[in-house]
Amino acid sequence: MSKLRDPKVILSAEEMPTQWYNIMADMPNLPAPGINPGTLEPLGPEALQAIFPMELIKQEVTQERFVEIPDEVQELYRLWRPAPLMRAYRLEKALDTPAKIFYKYEGTNPTGSHKLNTSIPQAYYNKQAGIKRLATETGAGQWGSALSLACSFFGLECMVYMVKVSYHQKPYRRSFMELFGAQVAASPSNLTEAGRRALEEDPDSLGSLGLAISEAVEDAASRDDTNYALGSVLNHVILHQTVIGLESKKQLEKVDEYPDVVIGCCGGGSNFSGISFPFLADKFGGRKIRAVAVEPAACPTLTKGVFAYDFGDTAKLTPILKMYTLGHDFMPPGIHAGGLRYHGASPLVSQLYHDGTIETVAYTQNEVFEAAVTFARTEGIVPAPESAHAVKGAFAEALAAKEAGEERTILFSLSGHGYFDFASYDAYLGGKLEDIAYSSASVQESLKKLPSIK
Amino acid sequence: MSKLRDPKVILSAEEMPTQWYNIMADMPNLPAPGINPGTLEPLGPEALQAIFPMELIKQEVTQERFVEIPDEVQELYRLWRPAPLMRAYRLEKALDTPAKIFYKYEGTNPTGSHKLNTSIPQAYYNKQAGIKRLATETGAGQWGSALSLACSFFGLECMVYMVKVSYHQKPYRRSFMELFGAQVAASPSNLTEAGRRALEEDPDSLGSLGLAISEAVEDAASRDDTNYALGSVLNHVILHQTVIGLESKKQLEKVDEYPDVVIGCCGGGSNFSGISFPFLADKFGGRKIRAVAVEPAACPTLTKGVFAYDFGDTAKLTPILKMYTLGHDFMPPGIHAGGLRYHGASPLVSQLYHDGTIETVAYTQNEVFEAAVTFARTEGIVPAPESAHAVKGAFAEALAAKEAGEERTILFSLSGHGYFDFASYDAYLGGKLEDIAYSSASVQESLKKLPSIK
Repeated sequence: MSKLRDPKVILSAEEMPTQWYNIMADMPNLPAPGINPGTLEPLGPEALQAIFPMELIKQEVTQERFVEIPDEVQELYRLWRPAPLMRAYRLEKALDTPAKIFYKYEGTNPTGSHKLNTSIPQAYYNKQAGIKRLATETGAGQWGSALSLACSFFGLECMVYMVKVSYHQKPYRRSFMELFGAQVAASPSNLTEAGRRALEEDPDSLGSLGLAISEAVEDAASRDDTNYALGSVLNHVILHQTVIGLESKKQLEKVDEYPDVVIGCCGGGSNFSGISFPFLADKFGGRKIRAVAVEPAACPTLTKGVFAYDFGDTAKLTPILKMYTLGHDFMPPGIHAGGLRYHGASPLVSQLYHDGTIETVAYTQNEVFEAAVTFARTEGIVPAPESAHAVKGAFAEALAAKEAGEERTILFSLSGHGYFDFASYDAYLGGKLEDIAYSSASVQESLKKLPSIK
Repeated sequence: MSKLRDPKVILSAEEMPTQWYNIMADMPNLPAPGINPGTLEPLGPEALQAIFPMELIKQEVTQERFVEIPDEVQELYRLWRPAPLMRAYRLEKALDTPAKIFYKYEGTNPTGSHKLNTSIPQAYYNKQAGIKRLATETGAGQWGSALSLACSFFGLECMVYMVKVSYHQKPYRRSFMELFGAQVAASPSNLTEAGRRALEEDPDSLGSLGLAISEAVEDAASRDDTNYALGSVLNHVILHQTVIGLESKKQLEKVDEYPDVVIGCCGGGSNFSGISFPFLADKFGGRKIRAVAVEPAACPTLTKGVFAYDFGDTAKLTPILKMYTLGHDFMPPGIHAGGLRYHGASPLVSQLYHDGTIETVAYTQNEVFEAAVTFARTEGIVPAPESAHAVKGAFAEALAAKEAGEERTILFSLSGHGYFDFASYDAYLGGKLEDIAYSSASVQESLKKLPSIK
């Protein structure tokens, strides 16, 4: 038998996780309760029932350490899971680092990112609850694609409000959703009150994620057969994504490794949580491990924001959550990592950062793309611009290990591929990418509009 | 342990093939020798040495049954191999067929198709031979992408002549190659004699694959540091692709299955050969198995062509090969499966078809895309338009099994994904796809220009 170097760590079907991990069972301080935007009182489950099925509401609040993954969901996960865990031998050599670099690659599934890990169970629980149709928003299109495919698997209708500027700039993401039977509307649309109001104010509005959320929530709340689905931020979404870290742990065990540091890019927080939370379980048990959330310098929610109650959307329709925020009115510069352009962060991630459990770092576009190109040329995979932030984070750790002369083990999440993002790589390679920083003044302005909650 | 259905068949590193399979050791009639286009005499190895390294020339003619895969190539294969072998449970249910359908998915690698299986060994052997630079042509961009990545792995320069119409229509394929450090020129270009001549005749020429081949061959022949690389047709290319079928055989063995029929789409023939030749080895040994090559009705080389000596390119620079051909001047209609628009077919595939060892079938665009959409909605993967032909072939076999009331086992090669082909799906879903048939009259005209070889 040959003893060739193999970068992949394989799991058998029997070794696949059968439960998701719920960090609320272990974290020292739970997130503050959500607030009803209408009453400004703590949010009860009944307020959520208009747009979510009961099983997902239960998952939103449960403090059980493990939640069973339904058989039907496990079977669909197995269309592409376990996701590859790779030892980046060629990258290590290129960086001339004593560090061992592992990456968990979530881009092999049909939608090209980690989002399918939660869209499948969300569609499943809605189907079980008798729902016929799901409504959602999408910006760059990753989440809309993932929900479209999941709805197609379960025979649900899918209504996607796609931010108008993306609708026109990324026609193939729209095609992807339509291929899977979804109805895609450019937001603001004529289909909702919120959309019509926006069009009245500005017929040429390019839309925003906040507005698209408002349209999708209104759609779901106004129809009995329809629920709403969200692709990040909420506890149940993050619960589903822990399959990433749970698999990674088992894969690393098989090669007798344990990471010194776990790295993920962080927008709403579901990818970072997915890769890191199962390891934080060990940290709460006393094991030494670091977790680093990597943000864009243009939208440094954790790194530069405040920890406060805020709305999740510009139209103030969503529950008010205690989180790090740059203010719900903050408009981040138009960087290429669209999935990281969110003013807030998951309450779970926010609480952990507030408690000092996790670290954050922020990078500008050019240094992120520079790392992505080196990664592509050595490992062969073109990272999504979002995922490229984690690549850059891993580079920094690998070079720190080299300076310290230490053999550290680094694990990062390569949350998606960049096949749909060549316009961004073109801009980078052509020297046309700007290192736009966030505007501190506009954050200060935006933070004045935080809701006042006791 | 749960007994959930798992569609994937996993191979361990130790079970990976370490040799390629060479069908020339087993086939009853070898292909006729190639002819030198200059002298019209049989082609000697010396004529090939101007553009190929000796190891590849040896592989072109060897009759050894197995050829060792170099360790460096095996290690790079392992970045994504073994490619998934999937049981299409959800598709079987949708087709309501008693057939078991398996597909081998070659789209998980960074370039998204099976082409990387041969670009890596080609770059390796050229590097070993001291070559610094490879030149090639590309149409839709799959092959150029695969060679660019392989050159990047081995530190070779890569020069790609990309058919001008694709260069402008598929800018992201160009970006992909540039990201991996390749130089990409729109063909016809000013860089070669053949290109300049074409531009003189028609400054607005959109180019053709035949012309791009002429440019790449001229580039390679005129520089000592440069060789040429071809992505299909030749024996050594097909040898490398047998890794697809060799893995599939081992994977099927693990679930105690053996196919009644093996299906691949067929342009130049490397994908069809890759999946089917290792099974044909058994057929030569007396085992009952069918192999079906699926062609587009717009370019039905095997189905409707003649078995004769012909040039591989329009400029008549390449060796003259005995193969099924529609004539080197035949211009197929502009269908969306660009990779299947080739007037000829591999001499190995041609000989096997001539001998009755394999079968062929041809389908039109709309029926192919209809099958692709059903496949996408059930299995979740969007097939490349080329690969969709194999999907349609598998549908036909599955429905035949249903009519016969027989439980047949079907294996097909899903040679690549369609992430770069949403314009085609858009056209199909919008009802804008034409079922263009090939023109029998233009084939007759083109066949008049076959070279006359004794």
